[in-house]
Amino acid sequence: MSGPPNVGAAAVRAGDRRALARLLTLVENATPAAEAALAELYPYTGGAQLIGITGPPGSGKSSLVNELAKLLRRGTPARPPVTVAIVAVDPSSPFTGGAILGDRIRMRDLAGDPGVFIRSMASRGSLGGLARATADVVRVLDAAGYGAILIETVGAGQTEVDIARAAHTTVVVEAPGLGDDVQAIKAGLLEAADVLVVNKADQPGADSALKALRASLDLAHPIARRWAAAGGGHHRVTTVATEPEAAPDVWLVPLLPTIAIQGQGTEALLAAIDRHRAYLQTSGELARRERDRLAHELEARLRDYLLAALVDRLGQGALAAALDRVAARECDPGTAARALAAHLLPPA
Amino acid sequence: MSGPPNVGAAAVRAGDRRALARLLTLVENATPAAEAALAELYPYTGGAQLIGITGPPGSGKSSLVNELAKLLRRGTPARPPVTVAIVAVDPSSPFTGGAILGDRIRMRDLAGDPGVFIRSMASRGSLGGLARATADVVRVLDAAGYGAILIETVGAGQTEVDIARAAHTTVVVEAPGLGDDVQAIKAGLLEAADVLVVNKADQPGADSALKALRASLDLAHPIARRWAAAGGGHHRVTTVATEPEAAPDVWLVPLLPTIAIQGQGTEALLAAIDRHRAYLQTSGELARRERDRLAHELEARLRDYLLAALVDRLGQGALAAALDRVAARECDPGTAARALAAHLLPPA
Repeated sequence: MSGPPNVGAAAVRAGDRRALARLLTLVENATPAAEAALAELYPYTGGAQLIGITGPPGSGKSSLVNELAKLLRRGTPARPPVTVAIVAVDPSSPFTGGAILGDRIRMRDLAGDPGVFIRSMASRGSLGGLARATADVVRVLDAAGYGAILIETVGAGQTEVDIARAAHTTVVVEAPGLGDDVQAIKAGLLEAADVLVVNKADQPGADSALKALRASLDLAHPIARRWAAAGGGHHRVTTVATEPEAAPDVWLVPLLPTIAIQGQGTEALLAAIDRHRAYLQTSGELARRERDRLAHELEARLRDYLLAALVDRLGQGALAAALDRVAARECDPGTAARALAAHLLPPA
Repeated sequence: MSGPPNVGAAAVRAGDRRALARLLTLVENATPAAEAALAELYPYTGGAQLIGITGPPGSGKSSLVNELAKLLRRGTPARPPVTVAIVAVDPSSPFTGGAILGDRIRMRDLAGDPGVFIRSMASRGSLGGLARATADVVRVLDAAGYGAILIETVGAGQTEVDIARAAHTTVVVEAPGLGDDVQAIKAGLLEAADVLVVNKADQPGADSALKALRASLDLAHPIARRWAAAGGGHHRVTTVATEPEAAPDVWLVPLLPTIAIQGQGTEALLAAIDRHRAYLQTSGELARRERDRLAHELEARLRDYLLAALVDRLGQGALAAALDRVAARECDPGTAARALAAHLLPPA
């Protein structure tokens, strides 16, 4: 074989934690060896339940992840125990890395469990790169056989939404007392939520936070209806759930109160996540979402490879010369980019 | 001439506001006519002072933009009056569009002034697209002859930082009472700040907000020093300014209290912005930053054009077939993307 050396894809599938950790580092650094391992492992993905959990700092999201992980390990009357991987992603600057590392300390009670694997990822420049690295890390963990993968992101912006897209079910966590102004940021997150949680539900302001979110969901309702009527791809009608018994045809985003540090409400949350998973499967939405996500990823990777090929072909000097002309205002950026692209790909 | 019809680049340069508004719409929609106009206008850019203002909702950023615009129009003992354009960018979901439109109401006292032009932009899908559209809108306004362009973004994430990069001087606005937790989000913003403002300085908690930011700046200080020592490109040493008289060699990020709705502190803020502009010019940092920004933009445009050329060449069907194989887990996304790229650009 002339390809890159095997970096332990087989060992990863056999449950070797050290091989897993090593491969994840290669994947994060996007090495050629990681490409080969990802290609080898990809057919074995698809078994894990992927749960995204996002929300602003201070919402107690990490405690909730902690409790969900324990519950998944223990099992409930409604579901058997599974192994769990946690991927904690901090898309903000390296300067804020401390926050998520601090949260990790609270996970000490999970660290001794061989059925739990925890991985933290921080931003290294490109945000698109982080979303793709997260997708690859999740794939490796999926192929390694973890039954559930919790993808935790800090924040409330578009980046977090993009990262959350790797999950089957996205849980958005809010908490009282984060300030009314902050609510405005989160409107974008509402659209991404499959399940909404108000954590710290015993704290002052919890009722008004629940009320405000309920109002937001109701407000979004007619829009979702209109989308569905117009043949829009997404059937997620964002309103308060009426706790259906079986897998529903239309998903009504449930709004659930929790007190994660006391373990309250987490079993109901897991039940809602499982109901959503059942809905995705019976409605065909699971395949649709995965296809959407893969299309997005394929496109992003194509952009990267094409640019790399262009730089290989023309040489860094040609790009620098084009940049000189743009910086000297001899040529605008659009014209310069079109000329470079045409050099490689003349218009047919 | 066989190119697209002239869409009023000359009229825009002559000060025709309707032609300007029309062209900005074309630019936002990235039409071929806009490409031609941008190419025609580009040589006339570079005259405007570009000021970015960003910060979380609730910081009173819009009031501050309002006051700065009035001050720029009126002039101060230190600077003559100039014409002003305001570009208000909301990178969050279309659902939050209401917030920024509400803010616009406060700008009514500017709307009657023919020397002021206000343009709001909202996200339409791609965030990279929004950053590029903002850069193009700013270029058109620059070529139209506005003396100062205020680029206002809502939020505190990487996207806002990317958009703010179009400016020469980035002002980051904070305010007391937005919650301690929220401070964590803003650490990434500190790096982007050339000038830091605590607005609503008459409100409870202003002193502790100032103290906390001062501590953050002092904390960042040794890192900046190390970067500079290691030959890092950025000479911005983030610490408290000692209000130098002339253009400094090293930029010390000033931390300024303001009460925008009373017009307090805004003249000192404008003086700090002008001092930063002078620093950029004398240090050579202005050209360095513009080159960095243009390199980034050229690369992003190249990625777009190369992908479009590939789709043109292979047809949408080839991409759909690749996606089918990936969705069926017959081929991983990385391998599929490399194969598509190689089809067009065989490895040399």
